[in-house]
Amino acid sequence: MSTGSHDYDQLTQKVAEIRDLERIAALSYWDMQTYMPQGGHHARAEQQDTLQVLIHEKMADPQLGALIDALREKITDPDTIEAATLHWLARDHKEATQMPPELVREKSQAASNGMATWLKAREENDFQIFLPALKQILKVSRATARAIKPDSDPLATLLDQREPGFSLGEINQLFSQLRDFLVPLLNNILHDGQPVDSGILREYYDPKVQWEAGFDAAKQIGFDLDKRGRKDISVHPFTTAFSPDDVRITTRLRNNYFPTAFFATLHEAGHGTYEQGIPASLARSVLGNAPSGGFHESQSRLWENLVGRSRPFWNYFFPRLQQYFPNQLRDVSLETFYRAVNDVKPSLIRVEADEVTYNLHIIIRFELERDLFKEDLTPADLPDAWNQKYEKYLGITPPDPTQGVLQDIHWSSEIGASFVSYTLGNMISAQLFEQARKVTPKMIEGFGQGDFSPLLEWMQENVHAVGRRYEPKDLLKRITGDTLRPEPFMHYLTDKMKDVYQLSI
Amino acid sequence: MSTGSHDYDQLTQKVAEIRDLERIAALSYWDMQTYMPQGGHHARAEQQDTLQVLIHEKMADPQLGALIDALREKITDPDTIEAATLHWLARDHKEATQMPPELVREKSQAASNGMATWLKAREENDFQIFLPALKQILKVSRATARAIKPDSDPLATLLDQREPGFSLGEINQLFSQLRDFLVPLLNNILHDGQPVDSGILREYYDPKVQWEAGFDAAKQIGFDLDKRGRKDISVHPFTTAFSPDDVRITTRLRNNYFPTAFFATLHEAGHGTYEQGIPASLARSVLGNAPSGGFHESQSRLWENLVGRSRPFWNYFFPRLQQYFPNQLRDVSLETFYRAVNDVKPSLIRVEADEVTYNLHIIIRFELERDLFKEDLTPADLPDAWNQKYEKYLGITPPDPTQGVLQDIHWSSEIGASFVSYTLGNMISAQLFEQARKVTPKMIEGFGQGDFSPLLEWMQENVHAVGRRYEPKDLLKRITGDTLRPEPFMHYLTDKMKDVYQLSI
Repeated sequence: MSTGSHDYDQLTQKVAEIRDLERIAALSYWDMQTYMPQGGHHARAEQQDTLQVLIHEKMADPQLGALIDALREKITDPDTIEAATLHWLARDHKEATQMPPELVREKSQAASNGMATWLKAREENDFQIFLPALKQILKVSRATARAIKPDSDPLATLLDQREPGFSLGEINQLFSQLRDFLVPLLNNILHDGQPVDSGILREYYDPKVQWEAGFDAAKQIGFDLDKRGRKDISVHPFTTAFSPDDVRITTRLRNNYFPTAFFATLHEAGHGTYEQGIPASLARSVLGNAPSGGFHESQSRLWENLVGRSRPFWNYFFPRLQQYFPNQLRDVSLETFYRAVNDVKPSLIRVEADEVTYNLHIIIRFELERDLFKEDLTPADLPDAWNQKYEKYLGITPPDPTQGVLQDIHWSSEIGASFVSYTLGNMISAQLFEQARKVTPKMIEGFGQGDFSPLLEWMQENVHAVGRRYEPKDLLKRITGDTLRPEPFMHYLTDKMKDVYQLSI
Repeated sequence: MSTGSHDYDQLTQKVAEIRDLERIAALSYWDMQTYMPQGGHHARAEQQDTLQVLIHEKMADPQLGALIDALREKITDPDTIEAATLHWLARDHKEATQMPPELVREKSQAASNGMATWLKAREENDFQIFLPALKQILKVSRATARAIKPDSDPLATLLDQREPGFSLGEINQLFSQLRDFLVPLLNNILHDGQPVDSGILREYYDPKVQWEAGFDAAKQIGFDLDKRGRKDISVHPFTTAFSPDDVRITTRLRNNYFPTAFFATLHEAGHGTYEQGIPASLARSVLGNAPSGGFHESQSRLWENLVGRSRPFWNYFFPRLQQYFPNQLRDVSLETFYRAVNDVKPSLIRVEADEVTYNLHIIIRFELERDLFKEDLTPADLPDAWNQKYEKYLGITPPDPTQGVLQDIHWSSEIGASFVSYTLGNMISAQLFEQARKVTPKMIEGFGQGDFSPLLEWMQENVHAVGRRYEPKDLLKRITGDTLRPEPFMHYLTDKMKDVYQLSI
């Protein structure tokens, strides 16, 4: 078999067309969240359904299946682009054949309706508005899992879709290891840490200037916002790509809290560098993706935190930021500002959480999902369960659903291990960062001069450029020589908190 | 046959899916012209190709053809929604079956490439950049016509696609009748008219305030920009709809010339009212369109000119506009302003032309298209031919291609009777307006109080609500009792110019 074979070319063409339709569906989704007028929702939902059913039909096409089978038989070297393409494609095709078209349509409808009612529920600050949609989403998510793997635990199936190769047992183990580290660390900080004053972040920051500063920072780290990307406003920040040369990030702005937009922008720009780093040769193939949600999040969390909340970054960027906000920051020291953006405090909103409590937000969500799937929890009881978990893990209770159970967009389209990727991403980011530092020791020094390119280039070469060629666990091993381990992340966080809070641990 | 029949339902569903894909393609096109970063072009073009080929495949589907044939045999009453649906669908299906998929792809590629190179050619003010694309577009347009009707004149076929039921002979006759009226009228104005001073329109008008004023005016005439529409910026203004509840118009702004954005906004808002007026019950069917380009333009030109350049409109809107632009307009009289926006003067840019010279711009383009199709003119010679026609009809020569042959977006995707709809639209608008006045005599008085709803409602009821149910000529006859006649437009223009220029004709 070679890329020149007729069958392989035919396969490539079929896949390219499916990818085109997926990109167009992504564009439609982007538009729904950014510019679509409210009235557009009903028809757009129908259009999305049509497109999703069509994509499914093409992916489940028996002719495609026959091509895959014929070509797989001819594989001699499993470590080639062609072999990887066939490996993932076989998986995607099989999953599609397991899904009845009616379920695809139901799923698409549940997601469109979910998004609309989630937006409305947030506006009205009323969970009941969202509840019927949520029930339907849970039902459809479960049915999807059952269709794909009738004999498996549904949540395990959905986890494997997002994080191929990971079992629920592994996640439980990683998470409890992390929890056992985080809870004492948090207590340590709260009781023995030198207090941090982050009041300076809660002044009025002109949203237009926030917009500019975020734009600047995203460009600085190497996300091309000039000819290959855009930044827009949406209710929930996200990243989407219509090709490596057209990558869109969104953000939201809060007048009286600086970190919201800034760090979300770095986060999404991190995702954006991944998408811009996918080679053109893979972009229209099944390999033109990250191998897992966790790998994608490793890039967003990397730039948001390991870089964006680091001392060297602010050595460089704080003087720039002072120019954007002279009134707010002229008389603030770099040290005060650095400590403020690293303030650790139990808080309500995941995307605004500090690096220590962040993973507790994820653990809460994962536990709730587990309970929903086990039917130990009904969707109607979700808000109460949410609040109880926040009280238990973080000692705070959301005053209303918008700051509680309605805060994330994720459950408005699908439920099932929807958040684990963030915590896996944190771990992967630290493990990759550790490796990158070994290889390019002067990397961090460069941040202080605004030179982020050695890190970006290392990620481009080792992570982005390979797309979805390897299973996530294999990829991590190829890059770092090791399996996924929480230790690099825990070491990173310990060192960071010792520095910020002058802890003696 | 009834709407309840299984076959008819199946047909309706198939058509709805095609329409969904067309709407999604329109969204993609809108994005290309508004927000897509430059780098996005290449992949987007491939995505558009895939979508266009798919739409074509579904429209040419033999199963659809069989359904159409079976259902047409059962038609008993030709004046029903079902009969009209089958009439137009049979036409669309037949055209699709005549088109080889390869030509569909070539056409899509030529259009994507055409748009990109047209934008670039404008930027560089260099026709040569656009020339290869233009040749390809002409080639593909001709091949399309030949595929659809092998034995007909290609331009006649393309005309019939845009203006069903109209022959080239009819257009020639209408246009020459019009030209014989316009040229003396123009001379009369230029030699005997009371001079108009439109200098006031050429001051600096803050683009942001222009944006607001245009927004305001569009809403005033009844285009819903709140929940069912949007306005954005693009190089060439246009209107597109993803459903009657999601209609997008675009505009462009010139700092030093007020009419550009304002009247283009009214023009596009006029198109927008049409799209918003398509009943939900027709929106996903082949009837969810205007029956012709001319009918669509009748609504844009109506609101731009018959309303937007009328005395009663400005009686109402001028005090508002003075509030938007106090420095520019505080000391300007309504009369001066009214005459200024009706200034007749040979000019270079079609979309900015006055009502008298406007149709000469169209006639020039139509003659050039005719010459291109007859091969009396090559694409390479188009700029010279363009300039000669402008000299001949309007006595002026474009100083550069951006103000000349590159000014319109139309030829960047297709060539062939691409502009006749505007002049037909002018005629239809006047004929409809005359009829609307008969039925609601106090309509025009209302404009002076900002009440445009009787006219809009009349159009909604008589024009928008029927969609593409009737052939354009039939529709006009049903509404006005008459065939298309240039006289109402000529009478309207004569009266208007007598008023503005105090002519004694």
